[in-house]
Amino acid sequence: MGAPVVGFIGGTGPQGSGLALRLAMTGRPVMIGSRDPERARQSVDDLRRDGAAPMTGAGNLEVAEAAELVFLTVPWSGHLDTLRAVGPALDGKILVDVVNPLTFDKAGPYSLDVDAGSAAEESQEAVPAARVVSGFHDVSARRLLDIAQALDTDVLICGDDADAKDVVLRLTGEVPGLRGVDVGPLRLSRHLEGMTAVLLSVNRARKVQAGIRLTGL
Amino acid sequence: MGAPVVGFIGGTGPQGSGLALRLAMTGRPVMIGSRDPERARQSVDDLRRDGAAPMTGAGNLEVAEAAELVFLTVPWSGHLDTLRAVGPALDGKILVDVVNPLTFDKAGPYSLDVDAGSAAEESQEAVPAARVVSGFHDVSARRLLDIAQALDTDVLICGDDADAKDVVLRLTGEVPGLRGVDVGPLRLSRHLEGMTAVLLSVNRARKVQAGIRLTGL
Repeated sequence: MGAPVVGFIGGTGPQGSGLALRLAMTGRPVMIGSRDPERARQSVDDLRRDGAAPMTGAGNLEVAEAAELVFLTVPWSGHLDTLRAVGPALDGKILVDVVNPLTFDKAGPYSLDVDAGSAAEESQEAVPAARVVSGFHDVSARRLLDIAQALDTDVLICGDDADAKDVVLRLTGEVPGLRGVDVGPLRLSRHLEGMTAVLLSVNRARKVQAGIRLTGL
Repeated sequence: MGAPVVGFIGGTGPQGSGLALRLAMTGRPVMIGSRDPERARQSVDDLRRDGAAPMTGAGNLEVAEAAELVFLTVPWSGHLDTLRAVGPALDGKILVDVVNPLTFDKAGPYSLDVDAGSAAEESQEAVPAARVVSGFHDVSARRLLDIAQALDTDVLICGDDADAKDVVLRLTGEVPGLRGVDVGPLRLSRHLEGMTAVLLSVNRARKVQAGIRLTGL
């Protein structure tokens, strides 16, 4: 088919695996990356579904080099180190930053301060030639991985590269139940990342996996 | 009827007037406050609708003293000064902080840093004995004021006083088209306030008045 390969750096966690799975089920070839290539291949074996597009596992750098569009789905604690390790391979590529600078205490989730303003802006600073788009913060990883559950959420995205955003919006629209919505420039990413704390708080209190729909569009 | 009076400190702007109008239309007596009592009375004359509950206008301090539940709907620039001016009158009362620390440049809306973390936390610090609830950040003022338009949005609220939140959730549910959702503790207010920048950005780009619905609840 020649459809562009979508890669997931740090794709063995629930968010990366979930997005990779839902995209593969639409026919997109996907690559799951990990610091440990063997672990990535194990994730692919676990996720593989009949009828899904080819899924392959590899090291993060190999994924960054091979994929045409790259999702960054590492834990926040590994964000900057990962960007430093794979950065040059992302030059000129669309980098979708899904990372949320969050942690938890007994009162629930809360966001961490980021010098750059947000994880996505940190990515743009670390890899200036990448075309950074921030998004998918509001999509529940647990729901993505449970393919018996329909998705029902808007994917709010922001970024400063209009063409890159268009590509990500189209990709989003391929997944049933997801609608991409461009909300504006990359500096708004702190709010998209922060809303994840709100959604996780609701999820914890109500035992649900909440999503967001914008009304009035 | 004896229904508790709802007051709006700084209620002559679009957000305060819009919320006051929609509540009055449900039969709630409301008071609109302003630094200038004459201006408050003029707002009430402009807003009054046949069949709405009594609306009265007065100075901010008089509203804070008379109302049993108080909305704070001043511009961000007047937030702290207003709290200092009326603070003692709010002791023990529910204070719904609707204020967004935002401004605009040519790239659109963006949020301002607040030492306390959020406008609502600043309120709690300034008036420790008030029962602060943060909410209504995601309700379009323009849509509130245009009564030909149905509302269709969740009102995300947060706070540390569970009983106060319950009162505000019930009040919210009286307005057709609004659903109150408790998202957690007051420290999450920064994200509710920040999402307003996202909504205003969408509104500006698409010429709409967007709202939020949580899905999967």
